[in-house]
Amino acid sequence: MIYMDNSATTAVTPEVAEAVKHTMLTDYGNPSSLHGKGIEAERLLVHARTQVARLLQCEVPDVHFTSGGTEANNWAIFGLLAAHRRKSGVVLMSDIEHPSVLETTRTLEQRGYTVTRIPVDKRGIVTPDALRSVMSVDVLLCCIMHVNNEVGSVQDIPALVKVVRERTADARIHCDGVQAAGHVPVNFEDMGVDTYAVSGHKLHAPKGVGALVVRRRVRIAKHLYGGIQENSLRAGTENMPGIVGFGVAAEQFTHQQEEWQQQMRHLRDRLADRLRALPEVVIHTPQDPADNAPHILNVSFPVGGEILLHTLEEAKIYIGSGSACSSKKYKISPVLQAMNVPPRVANGAVRFSLSPFTTLREIESVATVMKAVLPTLLRYR
Amino acid sequence: MIYMDNSATTAVTPEVAEAVKHTMLTDYGNPSSLHGKGIEAERLLVHARTQVARLLQCEVPDVHFTSGGTEANNWAIFGLLAAHRRKSGVVLMSDIEHPSVLETTRTLEQRGYTVTRIPVDKRGIVTPDALRSVMSVDVLLCCIMHVNNEVGSVQDIPALVKVVRERTADARIHCDGVQAAGHVPVNFEDMGVDTYAVSGHKLHAPKGVGALVVRRRVRIAKHLYGGIQENSLRAGTENMPGIVGFGVAAEQFTHQQEEWQQQMRHLRDRLADRLRALPEVVIHTPQDPADNAPHILNVSFPVGGEILLHTLEEAKIYIGSGSACSSKKYKISPVLQAMNVPPRVANGAVRFSLSPFTTLREIESVATVMKAVLPTLLRYR
Repeated sequence: MIYMDNSATTAVTPEVAEAVKHTMLTDYGNPSSLHGKGIEAERLLVHARTQVARLLQCEVPDVHFTSGGTEANNWAIFGLLAAHRRKSGVVLMSDIEHPSVLETTRTLEQRGYTVTRIPVDKRGIVTPDALRSVMSVDVLLCCIMHVNNEVGSVQDIPALVKVVRERTADARIHCDGVQAAGHVPVNFEDMGVDTYAVSGHKLHAPKGVGALVVRRRVRIAKHLYGGIQENSLRAGTENMPGIVGFGVAAEQFTHQQEEWQQQMRHLRDRLADRLRALPEVVIHTPQDPADNAPHILNVSFPVGGEILLHTLEEAKIYIGSGSACSSKKYKISPVLQAMNVPPRVANGAVRFSLSPFTTLREIESVATVMKAVLPTLLRYR
Repeated sequence: MIYMDNSATTAVTPEVAEAVKHTMLTDYGNPSSLHGKGIEAERLLVHARTQVARLLQCEVPDVHFTSGGTEANNWAIFGLLAAHRRKSGVVLMSDIEHPSVLETTRTLEQRGYTVTRIPVDKRGIVTPDALRSVMSVDVLLCCIMHVNNEVGSVQDIPALVKVVRERTADARIHCDGVQAAGHVPVNFEDMGVDTYAVSGHKLHAPKGVGALVVRRRVRIAKHLYGGIQENSLRAGTENMPGIVGFGVAAEQFTHQQEEWQQQMRHLRDRLADRLRALPEVVIHTPQDPADNAPHILNVSFPVGGEILLHTLEEAKIYIGSGSACSSKKYKISPVLQAMNVPPRVANGAVRFSLSPFTTLREIESVATVMKAVLPTLLRYR
């Protein structure tokens, strides 16, 4: 079995599994309890928050745990706008945002906001000039994802933040870092964004946990009402097994990310090279290493992406078709459309996504199987 | 070590731990993925939904997984009101709701709703007459919890639903069942409420998972925007380990709840009897078996509850002080205040909460330790 759909979700590492299990069976206290079991849980919570903060290079109290990336993106958008002193204005977002940003901003027009998209170039990148062309003093919020989930393009966040701040000090900037954390260097402090969303299960932590980093003194509305958890912003008993697991995974990435990123890049590029040799192949992931994350390869073949996906499945190779989060939602990827990929080509797109545990042998197997099945598939198209 | 704070949170059962681990390491697919790993995950999701539906006696598609009880309560209140055709009116809630309902309804006054509290009697129970006295055609939403988390009082939900429906067909009824599920018989269909909130970690599933049951054809606004998960109402990759664990725990309770409830009741009553023999003890949990859940015993001693809690802790006995979710929030329990308990007495309240795994030996130990420490504590008061 070869699993190359790590941008959809990952298996946890054995160390994460062990920590989760221990938190469920032994250190199972509720951090809100006043007794020793609660205090012990509170200590585990602080430790996990520290581990995640270290990966993202942010202040520990700025990390607010959520149930995942989607919740973090929803909260950032609604929360920053609700706390903004101006109640109408413009919300900017890149043209390649994840559905959890895209669908959230869709609701804003009914609430009286104007939503404007920032175009991307054919690499899937927002240039400072593109942002400048839509930027105005009326902008209340600007959403730009760090690494695109489908093609792996990387935005130059500090440069884009500069464009926004040059124009107005009043705009909030949210960055969806779900595919970035652990996969490209993340330095929240240096990026200068107000909020940053991450998800555990994209980096070998369990599903069901994520975080929203909120820069101190940035005003954001509460997300859930009830107890005083997460700095009184997100009530509810903390997902302790998930949070502890997220902490362990974050620490594993913090220690090994340079080596892991290099290794994934090497293997991903190797796969790209092998696939590029096949007929009529179009690679959508930008080629310059500065422009792409190391774990994603989006490629179109001259057959339907879904057919290819199921053909590979017969060889026990699991890959992605567009974004897993949205794959059942859109017929043709809005990301590839935004990158000006013709529908016929976009229709043949699949996504290979690697993990630090992907091996050269797996890469070679996938390339070999692709080469073997393509002629047969082409005969039936 | 004796853990008697199970209403704050529980340890998972070994069966739940095993299922969670397997879901993280082996069956780790994303239900949104189109390949076999995704389809297998989708199957696990449906299975867990079925298991939870069986415990709650509701239709399978009515179960919507959330990150826990707080999210479910927040969603129910905001979601039912947002989808209601009338945009102003009255929201009723019992005077002993959990903070996740209480704090959520607090925000409604700013949004133009009138929030009215339904008084409880000294047992902590909402009588049909009490509800009738505040009921009107202007009521849009009525929130009544099934089992109170602090004292364990049980509401006669079908009788209260009747009072609401007699007056208006337009009101929605939400019931917080977080402390009820698994601990008292729950039959969602028979109760007649529109929405019902449950939490996994109160019944030996992991923290970080819960559900909102939404009766079909009842209109409720989306809670999270993004993918099409949870019937397009709650986007975000599903917390598969948590959900699978929740399913296993629900099934364990479904099969054994009668026996387990009887056993907890027997042990809880035994503890009550032993404590009642101590000086100046006031038991707040209602005495009639029809009025109380079997796992909770709320008792005041003539010393501060927190002092008592820490004294027991020295004997490695862990109990609760008020509700764990709110214990760091309120000085004196609003629930006991609503039950007209004098502040001096309420100040000495602690909560013993049992699980199906609590033993007679543990009960006897707790009673013995209580009897031993009380005279010393009384000397220092």
